[in-house]
Amino acid sequence: MLRRNRCAKLRCKRTLVDEFELIRRFFDRGGAAAGVVTGIGDDGAILDPSPGTEQIQVIDTLVEGVHFPHDTDAADIGYRVVAVNLSDIAAMGGRPRWMTLALTLPPKEERWVDDFASGLFSAAREFDVALVGGDMTGGENVVATIHMTGEVARGAALLRSGAQEGDTIYVSGTCGDAAAGLELLQRGTPDDLLAERFLRPRARIELGSCLAGRASAAIDVSDGLVGDLGKLLQASNVGGEIDIDKVPVSAALTQRFDKADAIRFALTGGDDYELCFTACEGGLAGIDDITAIGRVIAGDGLTCLRDGAVVEYEASGYRHFA
Amino acid sequence: MLRRNRCAKLRCKRTLVDEFELIRRFFDRGGAAAGVVTGIGDDGAILDPSPGTEQIQVIDTLVEGVHFPHDTDAADIGYRVVAVNLSDIAAMGGRPRWMTLALTLPPKEERWVDDFASGLFSAAREFDVALVGGDMTGGENVVATIHMTGEVARGAALLRSGAQEGDTIYVSGTCGDAAAGLELLQRGTPDDLLAERFLRPRARIELGSCLAGRASAAIDVSDGLVGDLGKLLQASNVGGEIDIDKVPVSAALTQRFDKADAIRFALTGGDDYELCFTACEGGLAGIDDITAIGRVIAGDGLTCLRDGAVVEYEASGYRHFA
Repeated sequence: MLRRNRCAKLRCKRTLVDEFELIRRFFDRGGAAAGVVTGIGDDGAILDPSPGTEQIQVIDTLVEGVHFPHDTDAADIGYRVVAVNLSDIAAMGGRPRWMTLALTLPPKEERWVDDFASGLFSAAREFDVALVGGDMTGGENVVATIHMTGEVARGAALLRSGAQEGDTIYVSGTCGDAAAGLELLQRGTPDDLLAERFLRPRARIELGSCLAGRASAAIDVSDGLVGDLGKLLQASNVGGEIDIDKVPVSAALTQRFDKADAIRFALTGGDDYELCFTACEGGLAGIDDITAIGRVIAGDGLTCLRDGAVVEYEASGYRHFA
Repeated sequence: MLRRNRCAKLRCKRTLVDEFELIRRFFDRGGAAAGVVTGIGDDGAILDPSPGTEQIQVIDTLVEGVHFPHDTDAADIGYRVVAVNLSDIAAMGGRPRWMTLALTLPPKEERWVDDFASGLFSAAREFDVALVGGDMTGGENVVATIHMTGEVARGAALLRSGAQEGDTIYVSGTCGDAAAGLELLQRGTPDDLLAERFLRPRARIELGSCLAGRASAAIDVSDGLVGDLGKLLQASNVGGEIDIDKVPVSAALTQRFDKADAIRFALTGGDDYELCFTACEGGLAGIDDITAIGRVIAGDGLTCLRDGAVVEYEASGYRHFA
């Protein structure tokens, strides 16, 4: 009934590999990283926070069969679990500094762990965040959790709760690509650009840093624009209206889907990891790749308008994959 | 083949409960906590580290069926996942401050979540550590991960790597109780005291704080005394010898097991979460509830002695439960 411990020893198909040996071989890349007094290898990491900053801490989990299909490349899973946490740091206007990994694995080839680590470190290098510790355990499915620490100037962090009546509502980049990319992957007719948006979401760290102290509120779009903007408005105790024809969509999306589907993906598709944010008029001059899509109004709830008429969208209708 | 998203909605037996609703009801206890600028409810937590300290960050996961039996009370799982992280903070001499939770759950009654939270907050209150964020996801089995942040005076953190030839080797409390308690639980003949040591391990935070700056090296005993002391010696590039008759065992353990079994539990049983540490002679005067069990010597590896003769123990023989 009860299984033997698979914590200290992860049973691989060919060899029995010790947790510590796996960590040493695939995750301990050595080398000094800024602010890291002691990294991987002790009971915990010892870190040196920067004076004058506040710390942002986030944690996010990806579960096999829930957040990604079972046959997803290990490198993409490794990249993505870092990216989704980076996105939360970005949404608060922070600079990522350090991360720890909790990885639960069924029996896997060492090759899988190597690939996972390569994706993870690819994202880590890109955004200059150091892996400082972790825990590997055995389990039924892959469950990958990253905890990430960022830093932001004292008092400058972006919250969901600061939107004011009269503010403009913005979104970065284009919306709906990741969900469309996943749907095409599932149909077996993938589109390279759209698939990349799902598999390798690029966290908006630079934009978040620009917005810190300038935007009034921000959230990252992980569950879909309508749902996530709704959370921002609720946290701010205000309402909002957006013009759905202003919501930016990519050429790749409109080439593969008709207009109705493209809008549905753009409004309710998750996993884009763009930022949605609010600011007073003229407050964001000079910031590129952002689109004004509506405004903050008195009251509560989000109203989607097309040619001035109200259109209903089910915010909670989004599924990570179907 | 692919399941619907169970991330945003955790399907309970009777009701479909939103992740955010579960967090609000069971995990967001409100109230101000020291150093917490923004807690649960935004994209991340905003924290204010104490000046003059270094930060200790640890992460540890408990997996259903691996680290605890499937029928373990949810409250005990909640307590234990906090305790094992507290123990890592203790082993480095830190004061726990903040924690985040990543909880992956199969469909559960809300009652289960409520019980889990009650155990978690019981440990949190006991050691004054604030839950500042989390992520709830759906999965096949319970996978509970806590990331914890502690603080320690700059330069005072305890490492595994500082043991010096001639130092005395100590262990706190008594050894082997947790593993014995688990074995009796599994046999259906539980002992209350021993079971408590397994289900509700008490992290040695106070002792760790006393040792910071005084002990030369420390580790917590999670995988068994022989194995964990071996890691400390290896990290310090030294050897060690202990007298197994000096290893402290409880009356509860020796009442239920013969001497040979008691020693086996004490040397190789895990989950005690006592501290094992080294210090120069006389360096720890006035510290209670610790026992000198041996000394650090030149060379490498750990030698177990009884009446001066070498006894072999398999450090890796320990299973969390069998």
